[in-house]
Amino acid sequence: MSKRVFGHISGVPVGSTFENRTELSKSGVHRPVQAGISGSQYEGADSIVLSGGYEDDFDKGDIIVYTGHGGNDPRTGEQIDHQTYDRGNYALAISQKEGYPVRLVRGAHSGNPYAPTSGYRYDGLYRVVSHWCETGKSGFNIWRFRLVTLDEKQISAEIPPTGEQEPSHQVQRVTRVLRSTSVADWVKQLYDYRCQVCGLSIETPAGPYAEAAHIRPLGQGHDGADTPDNVLCLCPNHHVMFDYHAFTIEDDFRLVGDATEHQLIVDASHRIDPANLAHHREQYRVKHLPT
Amino acid sequence: MSKRVFGHISGVPVGSTFENRTELSKSGVHRPVQAGISGSQYEGADSIVLSGGYEDDFDKGDIIVYTGHGGNDPRTGEQIDHQTYDRGNYALAISQKEGYPVRLVRGAHSGNPYAPTSGYRYDGLYRVVSHWCETGKSGFNIWRFRLVTLDEKQISAEIPPTGEQEPSHQVQRVTRVLRSTSVADWVKQLYDYRCQVCGLSIETPAGPYAEAAHIRPLGQGHDGADTPDNVLCLCPNHHVMFDYHAFTIEDDFRLVGDATEHQLIVDASHRIDPANLAHHREQYRVKHLPT
Repeated sequence: MSKRVFGHISGVPVGSTFENRTELSKSGVHRPVQAGISGSQYEGADSIVLSGGYEDDFDKGDIIVYTGHGGNDPRTGEQIDHQTYDRGNYALAISQKEGYPVRLVRGAHSGNPYAPTSGYRYDGLYRVVSHWCETGKSGFNIWRFRLVTLDEKQISAEIPPTGEQEPSHQVQRVTRVLRSTSVADWVKQLYDYRCQVCGLSIETPAGPYAEAAHIRPLGQGHDGADTPDNVLCLCPNHHVMFDYHAFTIEDDFRLVGDATEHQLIVDASHRIDPANLAHHREQYRVKHLPT
Repeated sequence: MSKRVFGHISGVPVGSTFENRTELSKSGVHRPVQAGISGSQYEGADSIVLSGGYEDDFDKGDIIVYTGHGGNDPRTGEQIDHQTYDRGNYALAISQKEGYPVRLVRGAHSGNPYAPTSGYRYDGLYRVVSHWCETGKSGFNIWRFRLVTLDEKQISAEIPPTGEQEPSHQVQRVTRVLRSTSVADWVKQLYDYRCQVCGLSIETPAGPYAEAAHIRPLGQGHDGADTPDNVLCLCPNHHVMFDYHAFTIEDDFRLVGDATEHQLIVDASHRIDPANLAHHREQYRVKHLPT
């Protein structure tokens, strides 16, 4: 078996089309002939096929929300059980954590204006920016992955091409939720830029550094609010751990998971919405289920 | 004096033009009538004017490299002394650290195709993504700030408008240096995802998490290489501290600054280029100069 390739496949430009999954597989763009996710739990995912197979997929061109696999009836495609946090779903989580590019292939689908009219088309590289578990239209748990395009346009003037050591430059289009500066500022100043988990304040020549972390994430699929009752002041390490659900927070601010040596520091003037904590705990729970 | 406003000025759309600095100032888009940077050392910078006043400015439309202020002869504009890390220059560093949007105004300049033909034009919001000190064409130290546009295009379909608590969504175009996955992977695996400064490994449900930090940054203005001799494996906290020059590294791997309780962990198979360390130390030095 050949090595898993992340990024473009040599000789296959973006926009290449394929009549069927066998042709697509031979090209190297997406090797599996049936599975929608190409990847392993150890290496991450290198490509996906978006073909309208799941009723919960979402396609806005530059941004897609892709439904993970598992739990559907192989004959009817109907969702008949929960999806689990393993195989291709876990592979996509690794690609997010490591920042691996994922090749996107779209299959023909009458309801999607971004899909080709027939067969399959290679639509370039995307990046996984978040993933979460939710109840799908079927009533079963599904895993969802938000991906945004890594646009191909070169800014060749940016760096003169002086050799192999120069990394290539590209313009990337990402969806960014514009966060309220005043909410982030208010929370950071309230805690004097100290992490609410470990108390650390990072001093830099440009002043103290802390991050405003949303308990219930902003953006499609979560719709968390950008309000102080949904924001914590965290150091970058605890922000990563919180976003990846290495720990979560009880209503009494006890910490559960990889931060139990600490207790969340909460100022008397900082009301935190228990519904947001409950949302985070549910995501924590499903990621720690035995698979 | 009115409160400093970050972001758009109500009633002044992107593309608005102004005959002169007085008109521009009255609009609220850029208050100072002479200074190119509007901001303070305490609050950050809210707007800049790019008008070709500095010979080292760089304008690619979506991406600009803006030269800080100070050190020039007020009569001739000629650079006659070093720029220092204070006033507007420090204000732009704060805007980077806090992620504040900065309004960009372009002034007429015959040599710049992105500039208006006369007067001044409000060109929307940008984000400061990095800053550094270098020797300008004049031979004096100058501070430079890389800014990228926060594109205005709304993705209105992304989130249904259901009230004030919904943050607005925008597509952002950022220049991203495509980093070599294999170099980052190699370094992270060599250290088993442990920080070379503090030894911490962050465990998440998606596996261990660490960051590959470039000693000499990639991208225009630094041109660091994406090779193992320029990459460290760091936890997010020490990555932030290293990028903001809270500490630096001697050739013998002693740490200088806010991490002196540690000694850099370096594997025998990991050659680190002393020229890259020297580049980082020089940036550390100029940020810690008394001003």
